[in-house]
Amino acid sequence: MNNDNIITLDHGGGGQASRELVELLLKHVPGQGGQCLQDAAVLAAPGPGQRLVFSTDSYIVDPIFFPGGDIGALAAHGTINDLAMRGARPIALSLAMILEEGLPLADLERIAKSIGEASARAAVPIVTGDTKVAPRGKVDKIFINTAGIGLIDASVDIGADKAQAGDVVLISGTIGDHGVTIMGGRAGIALRGDLRSDTTALHYFVARLIAAFPGAIHTLRDPTRGGVATALHELAEASDLAIEVEEESLPIRPSVRSACALLGLDPLWLANEGKCLIICQSDKAAAILTEMRLMPEGRDAALIGRAKPYQSSRVTLRTLLGGGRILSPLRGQPLPRIC
Amino acid sequence: MNNDNIITLDHGGGGQASRELVELLLKHVPGQGGQCLQDAAVLAAPGPGQRLVFSTDSYIVDPIFFPGGDIGALAAHGTINDLAMRGARPIALSLAMILEEGLPLADLERIAKSIGEASARAAVPIVTGDTKVAPRGKVDKIFINTAGIGLIDASVDIGADKAQAGDVVLISGTIGDHGVTIMGGRAGIALRGDLRSDTTALHYFVARLIAAFPGAIHTLRDPTRGGVATALHELAEASDLAIEVEEESLPIRPSVRSACALLGLDPLWLANEGKCLIICQSDKAAAILTEMRLMPEGRDAALIGRAKPYQSSRVTLRTLLGGGRILSPLRGQPLPRIC
Repeated sequence: MNNDNIITLDHGGGGQASRELVELLLKHVPGQGGQCLQDAAVLAAPGPGQRLVFSTDSYIVDPIFFPGGDIGALAAHGTINDLAMRGARPIALSLAMILEEGLPLADLERIAKSIGEASARAAVPIVTGDTKVAPRGKVDKIFINTAGIGLIDASVDIGADKAQAGDVVLISGTIGDHGVTIMGGRAGIALRGDLRSDTTALHYFVARLIAAFPGAIHTLRDPTRGGVATALHELAEASDLAIEVEEESLPIRPSVRSACALLGLDPLWLANEGKCLIICQSDKAAAILTEMRLMPEGRDAALIGRAKPYQSSRVTLRTLLGGGRILSPLRGQPLPRIC
Repeated sequence: MNNDNIITLDHGGGGQASRELVELLLKHVPGQGGQCLQDAAVLAAPGPGQRLVFSTDSYIVDPIFFPGGDIGALAAHGTINDLAMRGARPIALSLAMILEEGLPLADLERIAKSIGEASARAAVPIVTGDTKVAPRGKVDKIFINTAGIGLIDASVDIGADKAQAGDVVLISGTIGDHGVTIMGGRAGIALRGDLRSDTTALHYFVARLIAAFPGAIHTLRDPTRGGVATALHELAEASDLAIEVEEESLPIRPSVRSACALLGLDPLWLANEGKCLIICQSDKAAAILTEMRLMPEGRDAALIGRAKPYQSSRVTLRTLLGGGRILSPLRGQPLPRIC
C-alpha cells in the first residue's frame, strides 16, 4: 500500500502533515458554524438558571465497522446520550482520535463522515478536537474519545437517586441488539440479516418526554456496557430500592434471542446503544408509553418492571414460569471492546 | 504475576470489577467536593457575560513515567493549559483512560495519584470519567484523554488571530526540556541529571498577567507538539503577520543544548509542556517580563522576537552570526508519542 493512502507517524508530529490530516477531517466534521476545530473552542454562555453537564467516554469497539453503525457514530451518539440521561440538552462535543500508523485513510474518512453526519443529524456540533498517531501495533486501528457539554433547565430534576417506591420501569425498545451484533460479528458467525446495532442519539426523544410529562420522570439511564441488568442494579442501589422485572415483558427481537442462544449470551447483560430505561410515576406510565411509541426511538417501548422498597435483593426477575431469579450486575463475563 | 495485581478484561466489562476499579481510582482522584465520578457531572452555571471554553487532548506519551512527571500529570496540565491559552479560568476536567490488560495496578495507582495531585494543586476538579480495557497488545499500557471546561471573563479578548504588527514575542522559560527528556529517555541515553520535563499548569501564571496588564496581551500559545517554531508559524499565519526570532535570546538549558546535539534534535521543534508564548504590546513588554520573572513558571522568561507585517516568510530566525534563516513548521521529522 502506498504511503499516501495510510496514516503515518508524520500525521501525529504536530507539523505540516498533522495540519493536512486536520483539514481532511474538517471536510467531514465541519465544526460549529464553519468555525474550525481548535485547541479550545469558545461557546455561548447558558441562560439564567441553567446548569452545565459534562461527560466523557472513550470508544474502542472491535470491529470498527458493524451492521447498523461504526465507531464514529457510536462515539457521537454515546456521549450525547450520557448527557440526555441527565435531562440535559447537549450543546457541544469534543472529538479526540488516536490512530494507528498504517490505518487506511479511506477508513478514517468513512469514520469521520459518520461522526459528522451523526453530529449534524443530532444538531450537536463538534467544536474542538485532537488527533494523535501511535506506531503500528501500539493501538488497534482507531480509538475515539468524545466529551460533551449539555444544559439542564432549572425545572428538570432527574437522577439515578430520584426513583421512588411505587414507580414503574419502562424501556424504550428491544434489548441486546448492539451487544449481540458486535459479539456475533467478532465470532464470525453468520447471523440473521436483521441483526444490527441500535446506535442512535436519544436526546430529542428524551426531551419530548420530559417536556410532555413535567416532574413525572424520575430517572433515566442508557443501559450500555453491562446491559439492562447492571444498569437496573446501579439505579436500585442509588435510590435504595428494589426493582422487580417481568421476564415476559422484555422486548427482545427473535433474531437476538436466537443469536444469544447460539453464542451463550443473555440479552439482559448485553450492551445497548440506542435505548433508555425510564423510571417514572406509575400513574403517568400509560401516557408516557403511548408518547414513546409515537417516536421511532420508542416504537417497541414497554413497561418492564416496578420499583419497591428494598428488602434483601436489588433486582429480581419474575420468570415466565412464575419463579423469581436474582439478577446480579455483570460479573466475570467480560465482553471486551463492546463500545 | 498474580491476577489480583494487574488490569484484567473484567475491569472493562461494566460490571462488578469495573466498579471496583472506579473505587480504586476515586481514592486518588476524589472529584468535585467529594462528589464521585459519574457518567455526567453537573456544574454550576457561569456568571453573566462569561463565555464557556471547551478543549480536549489525548495523551499517549512513551515512556509513561519520565523525569519530571508522568502521563497522568501531563494529561491534567495539558488540558488546563489549552484552556488557559484562551485566557480562560479552567473549572472542570474529565478523565478517560484506556488501559491495557496486564497493566500493573501499581502503575495505574501511581498515575491516578499523579493526576489527583495535579488536579488538586491546580484547583481544577476532575468531575467525570470513563475507563475502558483493551486486550493485551491492542493498546500500549495506558492512553489518557482529558477534556476541560473554562470560563472567559467578558473583558478578555485573547486569540491566535489577535497579534499585531509591532507586538513583541515573549516566552515564559527555557525551551525543549520536555521533548529532549522524552526522546533521550526513549533512546536509552544517559542524560545529564538536570534534564526533566517542564510539565506544569500555567493558568495561575497566565491569569495574573492578564489581570495585571488588561488588554496588553493579544495572543497566548503553549508550544507543545511541533515546538516553538511550529507554534509561531501557526500564530503568524492566524494573524497574517511575520515573526522574527532572535536566536541569541532563546532560553535553552546547557544540558538541553548538549543532549540535542547528541540526539540530532533542534530545541525549536521540541515539545514543551509548561511554557507559553505571549504576543503583547511592545510598550508593556518590559513590565510584563518583570512580572513573569517574579513567578516560578516565568523565572527564565525572555523577549525572543517581534511581529512584523507579512512579506514573504512567516517566521525567520536571526542567527548569532547575523544571518536570517527561515523557520518552517515541523515537517517530516516525526517524534511520535511525545505527549
